[in-house]
Amino acid sequence: MPLGKLHIIPLGGLGEFGMNCMAVRWGDDIIVIDAGLMFPEAELLGVDIVVPDLTYLLENREHVRGVVITHGHEDHIGGLPYLLSELNVPVYATEFTLAYIENKLEEHGLLEKAVLNEIQPNQRFRVGPFTIHPIQVTHSLVDCVALAIHTPLGVLVHTGDFKVDPTPTDNRLFDLHAFAEYGKERVLALFQDSTNVERPGYTPSERAVRRKFDEVFARTERRLFISCFSSSIHRIKLALELAYEYNRKVALVGRSMMESSEIAQDLGYIELPAGLVVHPGELKNLPPERSCVLISGTQGEPMSALSRAAVENHKHARIERGDTVVLSSRIIPGNEKAIYRMIDHLYRREAYVIYEDGSSPPVHVSGHASQEELKLIINLVKPRYFIPIHGEYRQLKRHGDLAASMHGAVGQVLMLESGDILEFDELGARKAGKVPVGRVCIDSGSLGEVVEDLVIRDRRHLSEDGIVLPILAINKLTGRVESTPEIVTRGFAAAAEDGLLDQARQTVMQTLELSSEEEKRDYGVIKEKIRQDLKRMIAKSTQRRPLVMPVILEI
Amino acid sequence: MPLGKLHIIPLGGLGEFGMNCMAVRWGDDIIVIDAGLMFPEAELLGVDIVVPDLTYLLENREHVRGVVITHGHEDHIGGLPYLLSELNVPVYATEFTLAYIENKLEEHGLLEKAVLNEIQPNQRFRVGPFTIHPIQVTHSLVDCVALAIHTPLGVLVHTGDFKVDPTPTDNRLFDLHAFAEYGKERVLALFQDSTNVERPGYTPSERAVRRKFDEVFARTERRLFISCFSSSIHRIKLALELAYEYNRKVALVGRSMMESSEIAQDLGYIELPAGLVVHPGELKNLPPERSCVLISGTQGEPMSALSRAAVENHKHARIERGDTVVLSSRIIPGNEKAIYRMIDHLYRREAYVIYEDGSSPPVHVSGHASQEELKLIINLVKPRYFIPIHGEYRQLKRHGDLAASMHGAVGQVLMLESGDILEFDELGARKAGKVPVGRVCIDSGSLGEVVEDLVIRDRRHLSEDGIVLPILAINKLTGRVESTPEIVTRGFAAAAEDGLLDQARQTVMQTLELSSEEEKRDYGVIKEKIRQDLKRMIAKSTQRRPLVMPVILEI
Repeated sequence: MPLGKLHIIPLGGLGEFGMNCMAVRWGDDIIVIDAGLMFPEAELLGVDIVVPDLTYLLENREHVRGVVITHGHEDHIGGLPYLLSELNVPVYATEFTLAYIENKLEEHGLLEKAVLNEIQPNQRFRVGPFTIHPIQVTHSLVDCVALAIHTPLGVLVHTGDFKVDPTPTDNRLFDLHAFAEYGKERVLALFQDSTNVERPGYTPSERAVRRKFDEVFARTERRLFISCFSSSIHRIKLALELAYEYNRKVALVGRSMMESSEIAQDLGYIELPAGLVVHPGELKNLPPERSCVLISGTQGEPMSALSRAAVENHKHARIERGDTVVLSSRIIPGNEKAIYRMIDHLYRREAYVIYEDGSSPPVHVSGHASQEELKLIINLVKPRYFIPIHGEYRQLKRHGDLAASMHGAVGQVLMLESGDILEFDELGARKAGKVPVGRVCIDSGSLGEVVEDLVIRDRRHLSEDGIVLPILAINKLTGRVESTPEIVTRGFAAAAEDGLLDQARQTVMQTLELSSEEEKRDYGVIKEKIRQDLKRMIAKSTQRRPLVMPVILEI
Repeated sequence: MPLGKLHIIPLGGLGEFGMNCMAVRWGDDIIVIDAGLMFPEAELLGVDIVVPDLTYLLENREHVRGVVITHGHEDHIGGLPYLLSELNVPVYATEFTLAYIENKLEEHGLLEKAVLNEIQPNQRFRVGPFTIHPIQVTHSLVDCVALAIHTPLGVLVHTGDFKVDPTPTDNRLFDLHAFAEYGKERVLALFQDSTNVERPGYTPSERAVRRKFDEVFARTERRLFISCFSSSIHRIKLALELAYEYNRKVALVGRSMMESSEIAQDLGYIELPAGLVVHPGELKNLPPERSCVLISGTQGEPMSALSRAAVENHKHARIERGDTVVLSSRIIPGNEKAIYRMIDHLYRREAYVIYEDGSSPPVHVSGHASQEELKLIINLVKPRYFIPIHGEYRQLKRHGDLAASMHGAVGQVLMLESGDILEFDELGARKAGKVPVGRVCIDSGSLGEVVEDLVIRDRRHLSEDGIVLPILAINKLTGRVESTPEIVTRGFAAAAEDGLLDQARQTVMQTLELSSEEEKRDYGVIKEKIRQDLKRMIAKSTQRRPLVMPVILEI
């Protein structure tokens, strides 16, 4: 066994939901697995996406050999534009995943310079000292792979996101044999998706949804609207097949739905019999019982096509009494209010609404492995070390406990969080320090606009208590205050605006009177004194703590 | 049958979650059923509670005879201080509910003037022209009632919140007989709780939780922390009983937990054997295997006792490796992130965490009736009209559909939303117009502080894009601008702060140059011109839309 250290460093996605990214390093060579984003929590006001802090990669920029992507979901590719704009290294991904990546890079004007390499399941390739073997897996998206990474110290197996679907709609089977082969040899470490570790049993096959769709198509008498994630190619394919069977024309409504279907069609994942798909503008001419609308917006996003249709504000998609709307997707935690508000509007339009409510057959199935599938892969791979990935700490912990109970299949469980350095050498494995990690908040529009924590703190403060600005004009020659202080407020409760402003003016005047000429000439000092006095006065008389921000105008 | 109109007017809770409130009017007499609050959505920035707009009651203040409360949950009593401060009418409630109400009114300094009347299940009382019969029901709280309201046109049955628990822990049974008696006569209308209409089957009894608690107590080797809603008296009682059986001392930690237990003890709902309960300060002297902590904070509220204990920041409640934490409560939608973050911290402290994850026996059961219970009550009551209440529109709709399918038990289903006037007379029932309803947002601290929509709009704007203030000093004698404009920003992304501020200053100067002397003297005009020009410039160069707020300082 060669002498040297193998480092595995999760840069995101371990102990947090989303923005999956992991560095694998041998000596002076680093490869990166996935570069995802996370959608911000509501408390990150005005932030559109969150990507991992890539300081570690940037500080080692001359060593980074490439990024290998397991599949095309946003939590695996969404950070790529940010990564590539800082560090233009080659990208390796399967055909379908690359198509998504190309779209994304084009939006950010990064496509031309990008070095994109298409990989194929079961075709090994080399990056630096690593030989990488992509293994076909099943998931809610198509063309997904796990990775077996051959390192000088042994084989690492990284599952990516997966479920073990015995009957995938595209008949591209989960490659159990490859996992079994590695298990017969010797696997150094298994890194496995923890998303659904809390669910007992098996996740149902994508095909389980067909029974529900079949029932819906058979029963629906008027227009049928079907919404799913635009990346749910299996689901789109299913809807198209049934529309054809039940003799309905299909309109694709919503930008993401159109783009995604186009890619899937180009790459042969879906076939469109001539005349099946019509332009959304044609909807008004079709008899309701002959039309089917695939529409984006399962999460109640305010500007999505379905949300707009629900309040009769979409040019082509009109929902009328007796129409049926199917939400074939899960309710992502945090989105309940928006989704249920949309469903309420659909019900008010007297549509039938079918959503995931626990009834059977299911209108949606998960794309992630449940407990029995997780155990199956562990038993096949029999790793020396097991490291749960992709999950909040609670999920990693439960996944770790699950694996630890499998004596004979797992040597040892190691718990990592983002930033931990996991070190392997000929003696074994251990945690060996930390690298800086964290989240980078990005505002809408162009990529450069990173939102600093300070700005977010200000926004939170502003959003809760508003702002109060005492404004003074000071004559820069004499140092005299040239006017009564002006007090400007915004987002600060109205009840306060009567006597309080006078009181605030007096407080500022008093602060000025009690300050020496020297203090008055040092704007830093006088501002801070005003801020403190005013803050105290407002807190005392209103119990609130607006942002107090004195402004001095030199005249 | 007497001539006249009976009006039923939901003022909150129909088509929205929470703030249940309903007016019942015959001629010149109005009674109100419940006066609840709703907890604000995250988008209502800085708002603490939301109560119904009571304009209708205030406009008819001389006709309001009293408020009858079904039970003590916040969505039924939380608006009372607001209502009574505007309209001090008598309140009618059961003993336990009154105890909660008294606490609440005392906090707001309203207790002394309030007229509180204790009612008892099965003891009829009269308010104005109505005879009201409180009927004992089971729910997650104790001492809850449904109401049979005898009006000149017939009996209305209002279920309040309920489930049909065959084995309540306090052995005070659901009074099925009273519902049955009314059904044998003739019920004009049934108003029924829609909260759990999406759940098939029966809601399990409160006793179902005992099996889980028993298992947990039997297995736990170190400290045991149990968190539940402070109003879950059944749950607190159960925990106390088992602690006694398993020979653990109990500490109550958290203000709401202590207050609620005290009320329950005073009124005989829980019994505390001498020496069972110890002061939280005693915890450090107890062997871990002999201690049990009832702690508030199931929803991950940042300042709650459990959240603080989870990050080792609570004086008395210390959670250590091998301790067990039980969350005996549901995860309220919208709180997932906070709750899971707290669970992650507990796992990081290497505690065992038991929360509602779908496993059986359940660690929590709902307090609301599922489909079969809803049908049972409908079959018992056999109302001429059925009106679903307490729910978002989706739930009301599904409840209405459920009732409409019960031919022979229901005459007609009427769908109402908050503000609709439902009119009954000798000919039947119909919707007859609307009254103004809506939400009133209340800031923390004292009751008077209603937050205007405008303030909330400002806060939202501030929170998303920040604020930009161009500030000018104008000489009021000459009308001349006395300094270069100052540009102050806050919550506006830092990237912008370099060249952009100069550019903004130039834009303001240019606006001034292009304005006539008259315009400059009219501060309203010149402010608006600056605002528009600056807004346009910023939107063009940053794609963002901060709140632009020109300030003119007269000197």
